[in-house]
Amino acid sequence: MNSYGNKFRISVFGESHGQMIGTVIDGVPAGISLSPDDFLEDMERRKSGRKGTTLRYEDDFPEIMSGVSGGYTTGAPICIIFRNSNIRSKDYSMFRDIPRPGYADFVASKKFNGFNDIKGGGHFSGRLTLTLVAAGVIAKKIISPIVVEAHITHLGGEAADWESGTTTIITGVKGAEKFPANWDKILNKAAAEGDSIGGIIECNCSNVPIGLGEPFFDSLESQISHLAFSVPAVRGIEFGDGFRAAAMRGSEHNDPYIDKEGHTAKNGAGGINGGISNGNPVLFRVAIKPTSSIVKHQQTYNFATGKMTDFSVPGRHDLCIALRCPVIFEAVAAITLADNMVP
Amino acid sequence: MNSYGNKFRISVFGESHGQMIGTVIDGVPAGISLSPDDFLEDMERRKSGRKGTTLRYEDDFPEIMSGVSGGYTTGAPICIIFRNSNIRSKDYSMFRDIPRPGYADFVASKKFNGFNDIKGGGHFSGRLTLTLVAAGVIAKKIISPIVVEAHITHLGGEAADWESGTTTIITGVKGAEKFPANWDKILNKAAAEGDSIGGIIECNCSNVPIGLGEPFFDSLESQISHLAFSVPAVRGIEFGDGFRAAAMRGSEHNDPYIDKEGHTAKNGAGGINGGISNGNPVLFRVAIKPTSSIVKHQQTYNFATGKMTDFSVPGRHDLCIALRCPVIFEAVAAITLADNMVP
Amino acid sequence: MNSYGNKFRISVFGESHGQMIGTVIDGVPAGISLSPDDFLEDMERRKSGRKGTTLRYEDDFPEIMSGVSGGYTTGAPICIIFRNSNIRSKDYSMFRDIPRPGYADFVASKKFNGFNDIKGGGHFSGRLTLTLVAAGVIAKKIISPIVVEAHITHLGGEAADWESGTTTIITGVKGAEKFPANWDKILNKAAAEGDSIGGIIECNCSNVPIGLGEPFFDSLESQISHLAFSVPAVRGIEFGDGFRAAAMRGSEHNDPYIDKEGHTAKNGAGGINGGISNGNPVLFRVAIKPTSSIVKHQQTYNFATGKMTDFSVPGRHDLCIALRCPVIFEAVAAITLADNMVP
Amino acid sequence: MNSYGNKFRISVFGESHGQMIGTVIDGVPAGISLSPDDFLEDMERRKSGRKGTTLRYEDDFPEIMSGVSGGYTTGAPICIIFRNSNIRSKDYSMFRDIPRPGYADFVASKKFNGFNDIKGGGHFSGRLTLTLVAAGVIAKKIISPIVVEAHITHLGGEAADWESGTTTIITGVKGAEKFPANWDKILNKAAAEGDSIGGIIECNCSNVPIGLGEPFFDSLESQISHLAFSVPAVRGIEFGDGFRAAAMRGSEHNDPYIDKEGHTAKNGAGGINGGISNGNPVLFRVAIKPTSSIVKHQQTYNFATGKMTDFSVPGRHDLCIALRCPVIFEAVAAITLADNMVP
Repeated sequence: MNSYGNKFRISVFGESHGQMIGTVIDGVPAGISLSPDDFLEDMERRKSGRKGTTLRYEDDFPEIMSGVSGGYTTGAPICIIFRNSNIRSKDYSMFRDIPRPGYADFVASKKFNGFNDIKGGGHFSGRLTLTLVAAGVIAKKIISPIVVEAHITHLGGEAADWESGTTTIITGVKGAEKFPANWDKILNKAAAEGDSIGGIIECNCSNVPIGLGEPFFDSLESQISHLAFSVPAVRGIEFGDGFRAAAMRGSEHNDPYIDKEGHTAKNGAGGINGGISNGNPVLFRVAIKPTSSIVKHQQTYNFATGKMTDFSVPGRHDLCIALRCPVIFEAVAAITLADNMVP
Repeated sequence: MNSYGNKFRISVFGESHGQMIGTVIDGVPAGISLSPDDFLEDMERRKSGRKGTTLRYEDDFPEIMSGVSGGYTTGAPICIIFRNSNIRSKDYSMFRDIPRPGYADFVASKKFNGFNDIKGGGHFSGRLTLTLVAAGVIAKKIISPIVVEAHITHLGGEAADWESGTTTIITGVKGAEKFPANWDKILNKAAAEGDSIGGIIECNCSNVPIGLGEPFFDSLESQISHLAFSVPAVRGIEFGDGFRAAAMRGSEHNDPYIDKEGHTAKNGAGGINGGISNGNPVLFRVAIKPTSSIVKHQQTYNFATGKMTDFSVPGRHDLCIALRCPVIFEAVAAITLADNMVP
Repeated sequence: MNSYGNKFRISVFGESHGQMIGTVIDGVPAGISLSPDDFLEDMERRKSGRKGTTLRYEDDFPEIMSGVSGGYTTGAPICIIFRNSNIRSKDYSMFRDIPRPGYADFVASKKFNGFNDIKGGGHFSGRLTLTLVAAGVIAKKIISPIVVEAHITHLGGEAADWESGTTTIITGVKGAEKFPANWDKILNKAAAEGDSIGGIIECNCSNVPIGLGEPFFDSLESQISHLAFSVPAVRGIEFGDGFRAAAMRGSEHNDPYIDKEGHTAKNGAGGINGGISNGNPVLFRVAIKPTSSIVKHQQTYNFATGKMTDFSVPGRHDLCIALRCPVIFEAVAAITLADNMVP
Repeated sequence: MNSYGNKFRISVFGESHGQMIGTVIDGVPAGISLSPDDFLEDMERRKSGRKGTTLRYEDDFPEIMSGVSGGYTTGAPICIIFRNSNIRSKDYSMFRDIPRPGYADFVASKKFNGFNDIKGGGHFSGRLTLTLVAAGVIAKKIISPIVVEAHITHLGGEAADWESGTTTIITGVKGAEKFPANWDKILNKAAAEGDSIGGIIECNCSNVPIGLGEPFFDSLESQISHLAFSVPAVRGIEFGDGFRAAAMRGSEHNDPYIDKEGHTAKNGAGGINGGISNGNPVLFRVAIKPTSSIVKHQQTYNFATGKMTDFSVPGRHDLCIALRCPVIFEAVAAITLADNMVP
């Protein structure tokens, strides 16, 4: 179902090329100050416009339709909508015959008997992550003083190499931003070839209290991963030492306590033992696949003709979706933590 | 909470050193033949006794207490219990003062104000995965003709090297089994040092129908990862190309359709697009950390004295928990699929 | 939480005097034809405007914001909104000091620390039942050929006495409607005294298949009553013979089967045995209290002064809320049945 | 599904003539003292043995299999089982052909394709209410100082007439008990005729804090009624003035506040406004139908022969199930309140 959470519950609706997308957020405690301004910074961080992102630009202005009165949350469900404006009404029907490789066209059409809205990906569009970011803004207020911070660690398989030079790029956020030169090269090369690239996001949550999460089934990792895999394009998630732990000895991976607050030596467990937060920072990484919609030609199946065909995806696409993702996984973490922390 | 699933729902209870552990499985369709014999093979595969596993040996005989009549499921909840027998009643109270690094002692004590049952790990014990395996047996019947198969791909960081020789080891399952010599060396070395090792499990589900999973929040990856992270010792999960996808170009990772059934060229998506099964095998890998309880001495904090202390974990432990895990992740996959497939 | 249902799930949001109220309906199968016109008849039946109902008149036009494309449901969540227009921005702050007897002012203020939106009852307003009716329209399409029909059986304690004469009244629905004279008298008398009256609604669902509902906890009665008591002003619910069954002998109340389809002699069980539909019409009655907001003076507590005070509720109120309720309980029944029937 | 509750969640399993029935109770806070002795008084109150109840007598001794260590709850799920001992293995297969009127035989057989366990009613047996009572014992500890008290107000349609004399009857509880003579007569008469009778139970919960329950969908009435209708034989439920409210004027039914704690003049709302507890006692009544299994001959359908047949239900049955019900509805109230009150 299109909702998540037990005590802090979000529901999403809308399609990429419909009138609006939106979210209903239930379980928000009364008395939290909330206005559209609170959302703008995180909205900006997810926006396109920066190098490597799609040319489709949306205002992404959050309209709060319920649950807030006089500038404060009322305890009733909060509905936030985002109107769609920059829609190109081209013909998407070709994707019924030639579903885009790596995209949801094929499965959506099968699951919904061809009634799915295919325009811009419909309800499967990455645009719906906007609602996660909005819910994340509220969640961050609830979980304060927990601080959630995410950033890109790898782009196209490479770590940022700040030593070998930086370049200044135009972003949608602050106008201009320093960017490692090696990543800039990767973006330029892929763009030139009509291709796309992936990346890895790391998210760190500090000041997490001890005791969040449940022993079985609702471990904190279970909850975070459940929500993280709701974000389109995620291929994997790992906590603390992650996949490297599988190659370690117990004496390497184990993380001795070093003080009476329960701090550990190196936080290899990513802040979670036995499914429960241990007071150290909750740390996870997600793998973001390269955007599936690419201009570069692919050979794929045409379900109408029954033959393989040469195929180039038209339209405006992100060269690297990972560039827009850090704030989304901050939201993932914040929403999950809030669901564990609201009374 | 200690339950999982919407339509096929399992609840677990019990402690490692209590009278029994058990599970209540709800949503099982009526009319499925079921007897204790059906469980034995999968139970055996999870058992200790083989090289590299703990000396604590339990019968693990499933007693079906409800929901089956005349050899067939009735549609009512099925309760299956496993009595604990091989319990060593040594003193666990030291772990209140010196919580085991990497284990749940510390967080459990904090979360439950010291009332948690600490004996053998109590409710946090890996022994509870027995209930998952039991539920998995029933789930496998429900999802037939889907075939779920899991195996170890890496042990202690190494892939199996069958070329360089094999060794015959005693197992709890079939008496004797061929084992790659390089893994045997890894186990011997870690055992000699009182240490432990981790591994990677790969699980493949074939014959999965198109259309399982939901667009947002309940993507098939979300559901599988939620349950996978319920298993103690999991540090990461990835689907299809997984973390490698983050270093690929779109043109590499994209997976063109090649026929009218929707088969793809290389299944880099692990059988899932847009959160929904695409008819190709569902494929995932999990990283299992090395067992945290080791004989090798560690320096950790003594909460009673307020000082660091030298610490060696007494008792019987698995040298490599991953050896017992494949059947557990088969259960994880089967349970999740069943939850999507029961009417 | 402000959502209901497992497979057919509705979430509601909005406040009586906010910008809009709305609902997100998840789990609607793809391929159902749906347009605003489909809602109008049921919307009309709930509307005010008829004798005995409030003078606040709202358009109640349903705007479908998502989940429908080309006139058919897509399988994605359907968001329907209703804009509020006819709002009188008078001062409601007096109800913080003098909470209306029988209304939610007092508890809402306590539960939400005074941050609740009190204007027009805010999120507690009966206006939110509009969203139920909207969801009911979709549910009725899903459960077809089940026919759900509800009507008033008692008004102000009296059954309709069609023998002693009828009167023609103006309604919001069809312009004019015949009405039993005894009920007309009851309404006139209460109106003259500034008072309000209650009533009883009976709902009958025919063509219900055998087998809906679960043995324990989710009996069909449990599900219907859960949703029925979500409607403000409900004081009781009974199925089949209801409270009269408590005064019967078993030989009277038992309902023998009379044919091979499982029809029973008199449907005293209201179509449900053991929590499960038995193929006979599902039949229930709900008791609606008289509107709590009345012009007639009451003595109640002023929390600001700490003294009892004379109190007359200003504003526009329904004389008898039961008059608008039949279609709401049709929705209650239809939504519950749909939740049991969608795949 | 066979589970109830969000934060305090109970699951039930077992059949009347199986090995055991049981419950898993999740969400119980750690540190509550708990031993089998705590259950005995409430178990006794539900037991048969008293006049008007079945001759099947069970020990009903609660065995706590998990979640308690050293006499205190651990925070892990609590599994409590009750072994079945007094089982008469007569032939129940006749009820496949001639399903008992008013009982679940017919629907269970249809819903579960004939695989349902029909012996003693199987999973549909009223015996499963034993698990509710057990969960209620724990819930009562959690909600303290709330006091929950239920009793019979009407038996066979009559209020207790203590004025016209009492009789001393043998009970299963305390050996002997005073009983109104008019009820004794009703029981004697029905018994002589091989018939059964119904009754009304009233449950009162005092010291309930203000603020429990949710505005929409999870009103406190919704929650209580959901669980109440899980109990077999319930035909109706009402809160406060209940069905009588439908015949009242607003000025009669409204319940003015009389002091700063929010006490009201007559608690006609049953302690709940707008779905939320208002600090006055929560008060509800349920209608219990007469036992459906009666010796008295009925004419009903024989599905094997396709003809109506004369039918007398053999076996041991309760003459009046309501006699055993008060403690069950105390459990219903306590469980619901606990679900709202655990952190």
